[in-house]
Amino acid sequence: MTTSVDTALIQSLDSAHFLHPFTDFKDLSSRGARVITRAEGIYVWDSEGHQILDAMSGLWCVNVGYGRKALADAAHAQMMTLPYYNSFFQTTNVPAVQLAARLASLAPAVGDRSFQHVFYSSSGSESNDSNVRMVRRYWDLLGQPRRKVIIGRINGYHGSTMAGASLGGMSGMHAQGDLPIPNITHIEQPYYFENAIPGESREEFGVRAAGWLEAKILEVGPDKVAAFIAEPLQGAGGVIIPPSTYWPEIQRIVDKYGILLISDEVICAFGRLGHWFGYEKFGYKPDLVTFAKAVTSGYVPLGGVMVGNRVAQVLIEQGGEFNHGYTYSGHPVACAVAMANLDIMEAEQLPQKVCGDIGAYFAQRYAELNDHPLVAHAETCGFVGGLVLVKNKKTLERFHADDGVGMVCRGHCFGNGLIMRAVGDRMIIAPPLVMTKTDIDELMRLIHLALDRTLVDLKARGLV
Amino acid sequence: MTTSVDTALIQSLDSAHFLHPFTDFKDLSSRGARVITRAEGIYVWDSEGHQILDAMSGLWCVNVGYGRKALADAAHAQMMTLPYYNSFFQTTNVPAVQLAARLASLAPAVGDRSFQHVFYSSSGSESNDSNVRMVRRYWDLLGQPRRKVIIGRINGYHGSTMAGASLGGMSGMHAQGDLPIPNITHIEQPYYFENAIPGESREEFGVRAAGWLEAKILEVGPDKVAAFIAEPLQGAGGVIIPPSTYWPEIQRIVDKYGILLISDEVICAFGRLGHWFGYEKFGYKPDLVTFAKAVTSGYVPLGGVMVGNRVAQVLIEQGGEFNHGYTYSGHPVACAVAMANLDIMEAEQLPQKVCGDIGAYFAQRYAELNDHPLVAHAETCGFVGGLVLVKNKKTLERFHADDGVGMVCRGHCFGNGLIMRAVGDRMIIAPPLVMTKTDIDELMRLIHLALDRTLVDLKARGLV
Ligand SMILES: Cc1ncc(COP(=O)(O)O)c(C=O)c1O
Ligand SMILES: Cc1ncc(COP(=O)(O)O)c(C=O)c1O
Repeated sequence: MTTSVDTALIQSLDSAHFLHPFTDFKDLSSRGARVITRAEGIYVWDSEGHQILDAMSGLWCVNVGYGRKALADAAHAQMMTLPYYNSFFQTTNVPAVQLAARLASLAPAVGDRSFQHVFYSSSGSESNDSNVRMVRRYWDLLGQPRRKVIIGRINGYHGSTMAGASLGGMSGMHAQGDLPIPNITHIEQPYYFENAIPGESREEFGVRAAGWLEAKILEVGPDKVAAFIAEPLQGAGGVIIPPSTYWPEIQRIVDKYGILLISDEVICAFGRLGHWFGYEKFGYKPDLVTFAKAVTSGYVPLGGVMVGNRVAQVLIEQGGEFNHGYTYSGHPVACAVAMANLDIMEAEQLPQKVCGDIGAYFAQRYAELNDHPLVAHAETCGFVGGLVLVKNKKTLERFHADDGVGMVCRGHCFGNGLIMRAVGDRMIIAPPLVMTKTDIDELMRLIHLALDRTLVDLKARGLV
Repeated sequence: MTTSVDTALIQSLDSAHFLHPFTDFKDLSSRGARVITRAEGIYVWDSEGHQILDAMSGLWCVNVGYGRKALADAAHAQMMTLPYYNSFFQTTNVPAVQLAARLASLAPAVGDRSFQHVFYSSSGSESNDSNVRMVRRYWDLLGQPRRKVIIGRINGYHGSTMAGASLGGMSGMHAQGDLPIPNITHIEQPYYFENAIPGESREEFGVRAAGWLEAKILEVGPDKVAAFIAEPLQGAGGVIIPPSTYWPEIQRIVDKYGILLISDEVICAFGRLGHWFGYEKFGYKPDLVTFAKAVTSGYVPLGGVMVGNRVAQVLIEQGGEFNHGYTYSGHPVACAVAMANLDIMEAEQLPQKVCGDIGAYFAQRYAELNDHPLVAHAETCGFVGGLVLVKNKKTLERFHADDGVGMVCRGHCFGNGLIMRAVGDRMIIAPPLVMTKTDIDELMRLIHLALDRTLVDLKARGLV
């Protein structure tokens, strides 16, 4: 395999031909991309032979870790049997059916909500586009076509299609390309560190933050609101973990106004929070559940929506033809790989691990980061962790955006053999669910090292 | 592998859990889906053991045919080496770079347009969303933010995301979910059979149909138009092959007004029309070229945009960070499979075959369908064919939509061991590019059989 790679050649071809996602192409070209060539377990290697602990699981997706032969075997076998067939014209294929049935069996019913149906796509973005189309169709079929508005959250992330980027609340994305599209609006995020008022407890803040949804519904007009979309916890926004009081109050509000609740679990499903689905962790009752990423541990693109009974019933019974779908909806290879991936997750009890012993150990070790002079609010939820880099631990004074403190820390991580992601002044991780206690110790050692070097660096620049 | 399958069980799980694309769920549930279990070469088999010649290449994608071990091997090897890594944070991977360089070398420069850069996605839909975001960004960077309007065509197909469905001109899709999104408008399609005026030649019609673009530009205001998007020939719309005069006149118009030209080649690229790209066949100069489907022959989801020099230069030199991309942009496994697929296409000279001998034989045999009493306007372009089923061959009187004549014919195809697609009263095919002359003879035999049975059927119903 690609064991020996000419780094300079690949870098020059890269900059000549590959327009990377979310990148300043000119800047990347001037630096040269790091070439990741191989991976095994929780480690990746670059073309220069550096071994790097991937605490981001690729991009929140490689939950079972790298190098899993069972997944490669499943892909190979399915490609030799039936590499592709469409599901458009009253035809189906076995892996797509098996996976749909299995996902339905994994998603527990909550209250009067159950999840028996799956609509497939190949990504989180496409799935959220499907959500918009299903939500609008649902209300049209119920004779309430005025219910068009979908409420999302500032700093939420729901993908990069025109609709996905509109549902999300990333100002940098909205600034490019005339977004959001109409009838999508946003409320503030439940970010305690940033949005709480002095003296407010987390619990008080959670209720107040959920209240912004009710205020927005009243502002828009309750008869015009179709749905609320949110991640169980915000991932790409910087691992913003809502207070425990947030989701129950959100539930009360969506119930009160009868609006649909979309749980975007592209990151949070499949064990990440210690359950098959994120709504289980926070105990709410969504109508639609977006998934992607870890359903295949990223080995093959696959996404979709778990369609709850409330919506499915209307679409099936009253819908006629639903004029929506993708060439690769129900792709047999993607679905076969997902089945093999879920086999591993079940056999190795990964969700249980995360909400059991290992998860507790991870939480405890990660919380120790609160002792570091640069760190505030280090916290975890399942196998996700976030912290804020602060200038002053006592006053919680923050760095200026121009200081680029997250990128400085990220540089020290990479330099050291660790991948953490920087989101402004937040450092975040989402390690593979197969981490052992020894791996966690090693992870913590690397994080401390990176933080220490960041501190030295910032001191030298006179920033702390 | 899945050789023996319990059809009834799969059908019942299918209807209980799988919401198919573009389907009336209730109706499908009442019939039970046909279960496609395996495939080899140009044939697929269902769970009841029926062998079916797949003249649609899956869904316009399995260009190299089924059962290609080289593709399965490439997927397996890449999964064991590096199953996934992201390209977001100044990192890259070898297959994504190699494929980008290779696509750039396959896409010929035309006039002052060259194609050196690739933006990746996982589908045709996502790629067209990327186009919208790039087009708008381009004009913003050039200080012409008023140029927002993208012109598409009625009965064009560009995908099923909110933006893809908006760019497309499928009225059934627009009727569901509040589409199109703003600043997208459409002109009539160049469908000679339907839109020509009595006595008009194909050539005259082509120029007139292209003129609708100029009229629309003037209606919208030339300083407000950002781009025109079109398929080289319309696929999902029913294989509408434009007159030879159409594209040259379109080129003249987009040049005159300086608007960007997007060539959606999700169907037409990779040998389908006898060239690597569809724009070569028709000789125009696009700025952006959408691809997906046959880039991997459908074995793994992959899509993208070839970004021409005009747009790439602005985005790279003046753009700063482009806030757009997908988790699976540049997926290493998808790109490795694409490389193996292009290896096959090159080794077996598939594009050359289609524009050579075999293509000519296919065109000649297909044209013979014009002798059938039910058929008008049977024509091909590369390895794509379309015809209209007519009530009266002399007067060209058409069937009523309610007669469902396409579906009747499609039923006889399936019943006979042939997959053709019905689009209203049009029957269309896009067979795998590996067809031999013998395969083409067999295909024609099956088409004749299906048409004959359709005729008997329609006669019995008193429709002809
Ligand atoms: C919560 C959430 N939704 C949607 C997406 C978009 O997924 P994709 O990049 O596969 O389109 C992401 C990607 O990170 C995500 O985190
Ligand atoms: C021309 C064209 N563009 C875009 C698409 C959408 O591709 P996908 O279904 O992969 O999103 C299609 C699908 O058939 C197509 O034919």
